[in-house]
Amino acid sequence: MRNLMARRMQTVKPSFIREILKVTQDPTVISFAGGLPSPDLFAVEPMSQAAAKVFRQGGRSALQYSTTPGHPPLRQWIADHCQRRYGLQVDADQILITSGSQQGLDLIGKVFVNPYDPVVIEEPGYLGAIQALGMQEARIYSVPLLDEGLDLEFLETVLSGDRIKLVYTIPNFQNPSGLTYSLQGRQALAERIAKRDLVLVEDDPYGLLRYEGQDLPALARLLPDKVLLLGSFSKIVAPGLRLGWICGPADVIKELVTAKQAADLHTGTFVQRVLAQYLADNDLDAHVEVLRRVYRQRRDTMIGALERSMPAEVTFTRPEGGMFLWVTLPAGVSSLRLFELAIQQKVAFVPGTPFYVDGGGEQNLRLNFSNASEHDIETGVARLGAAMQGMLEG
Amino acid sequence: MRNLMARRMQTVKPSFIREILKVTQDPTVISFAGGLPSPDLFAVEPMSQAAAKVFRQGGRSALQYSTTPGHPPLRQWIADHCQRRYGLQVDADQILITSGSQQGLDLIGKVFVNPYDPVVIEEPGYLGAIQALGMQEARIYSVPLLDEGLDLEFLETVLSGDRIKLVYTIPNFQNPSGLTYSLQGRQALAERIAKRDLVLVEDDPYGLLRYEGQDLPALARLLPDKVLLLGSFSKIVAPGLRLGWICGPADVIKELVTAKQAADLHTGTFVQRVLAQYLADNDLDAHVEVLRRVYRQRRDTMIGALERSMPAEVTFTRPEGGMFLWVTLPAGVSSLRLFELAIQQKVAFVPGTPFYVDGGGEQNLRLNFSNASEHDIETGVARLGAAMQGMLEG
Repeated sequence: MRNLMARRMQTVKPSFIREILKVTQDPTVISFAGGLPSPDLFAVEPMSQAAAKVFRQGGRSALQYSTTPGHPPLRQWIADHCQRRYGLQVDADQILITSGSQQGLDLIGKVFVNPYDPVVIEEPGYLGAIQALGMQEARIYSVPLLDEGLDLEFLETVLSGDRIKLVYTIPNFQNPSGLTYSLQGRQALAERIAKRDLVLVEDDPYGLLRYEGQDLPALARLLPDKVLLLGSFSKIVAPGLRLGWICGPADVIKELVTAKQAADLHTGTFVQRVLAQYLADNDLDAHVEVLRRVYRQRRDTMIGALERSMPAEVTFTRPEGGMFLWVTLPAGVSSLRLFELAIQQKVAFVPGTPFYVDGGGEQNLRLNFSNASEHDIETGVARLGAAMQGMLEG
Repeated sequence: MRNLMARRMQTVKPSFIREILKVTQDPTVISFAGGLPSPDLFAVEPMSQAAAKVFRQGGRSALQYSTTPGHPPLRQWIADHCQRRYGLQVDADQILITSGSQQGLDLIGKVFVNPYDPVVIEEPGYLGAIQALGMQEARIYSVPLLDEGLDLEFLETVLSGDRIKLVYTIPNFQNPSGLTYSLQGRQALAERIAKRDLVLVEDDPYGLLRYEGQDLPALARLLPDKVLLLGSFSKIVAPGLRLGWICGPADVIKELVTAKQAADLHTGTFVQRVLAQYLADNDLDAHVEVLRRVYRQRRDTMIGALERSMPAEVTFTRPEGGMFLWVTLPAGVSSLRLFELAIQQKVAFVPGTPFYVDGGGEQNLRLNFSNASEHDIETGVARLGAAMQGMLEG
């Protein structure tokens, strides 16, 4: 049967990160590899109460088929959230509920990308976007990510040279780099894009997890007609529900709804209602405040430990939020080789290479700090330092 | 933004059925239009207990990310089910959990179908398959469905004339026709396919809902190396969970897993665990027996009412199971026109046209009997008879 496979399956690879997750099943390994929120912080009891209430008050309809765009009260909550958080004037019909924001990428790819259409992603780039756009056989241009945001000179060259259809960005606490686009970086990007006929995808799964500094305007605020904004409850409520959303112009949402019908009819009725109930009965802002406090502490612990354990030639980003920091090793030191030594030391991370479409990233690695205790962060980074030491000496 | 849409969006239309569902929101309309199971029969209380248990015994991991192929105990349950029900020797690694079996179609399309690849569906055909294959820009050949199964002469002509990559079938109580492939129909189809290099998709969402006659061997049993078997919990447990599965060769499941990673990372952890708990704590066979009893009665009521209310020139299928029967009107009588009159009489159905890719179906309509009480079936069919009468006289 495999001889009959479509072309796209030759380019899309199984996620390296998901492969690494298998290695890290060993409970003695401290893993900084995944992108998992801390399960200790899940609101298990409030969620359990919300589920019980949904069953009690409307169990039958919660178990039945429902409409493709999503549960109306949840769409309304998200529309209000978009107003409150991003200052966007949106109605519920501008919201599509998706099965995690990964599905948002899949649907956007389907609606906009023909095979061989040129698209832009950040370099280093989010693996899920590389996979989803790869499934549409997009031609992917990687534009380097600098401290202020996308490298605009590089972007301009790409935009002038090809009819780019779509640009994918994570402006807040980017995965994998942890970088945040500055105000100037956002404004300058918006200016470049404003004259172009393309779709800008703004993915903001981590935006609420800011540990310092000020919220900056969303690209969707700066370019309302050109942006599809993706959000997710995975990092602020629970990823196991698989609930995300797309916010965009109503006529585009309609097309995305058609694509979603063909993809899975609709997102689960039951989980949508449980989430809506949870949001109605609980203070999400207060919950996010707890996440911020704990994750900020873990980030600081990781930064401190890296400063103590790593040779001075090793540099890393100091993210203002999110879940990752990005390490650059000295020239000639391979993160793939370091990975092997680190696994022997019982600590795991993701080498930089899978985040690069056209090669590169051998000198980089991604560290997750949200899903390890401060104690494990200290221990794990010390082990990483030992592996690094061994490598520089070896 | 809409000017940037991909080609496929010009061919894939929003589901007509989902549009009709909006019309039938009016509670005074009796609807035979949807394909919904009866919510009265959902096991709300056992499901509620299963959810409470999942939260109590492992709430944190139920809310966390999980692996793409699915929750291991649920995969194992399905593998055992495939053995018990279909006589297939399968391991858990031959099972992929999907977000409803509609997602199975999406993933199979992605893994096997390049734009313009020729595929075969039944005529009349399942709308969700037409949509999912349309999203891959497949060239769709419709092969007529006869009493015994696919029209094999027609199929042979198509197979000889083009390099068909995939054949999609619903051998049990087909949607929309209600027809079931006979033993001879299955064996003869298997013989024709055996020599060909193609994928046979066997979709079996209704198979357990048999009201008379004997279970017949699955195509997957007759052609184990060529069949991908799709199953769903939507019709036997609850569609609002969005839980289905694909069973196939392990090396193909692996590719489907890669496609699923890119589509939505994985199906919801929480709902998978709730279903696994429900299946562990309850007797599904006994539950299905209740569904069979109620739906059999509803089918019989609808057949009786049609015999009484419809002119003799109106014919219809007498399905051995499932949820639908298929009506053929006298020559020259349009089901689209009948639909308008029926809506005035406060009864709804799906006209035959959306089930035909290349035109046709004007003389047909699909009636669902699972989601209306016997009283409503009597009343609704009488209204339909009145609309029909008005049409023949008008």
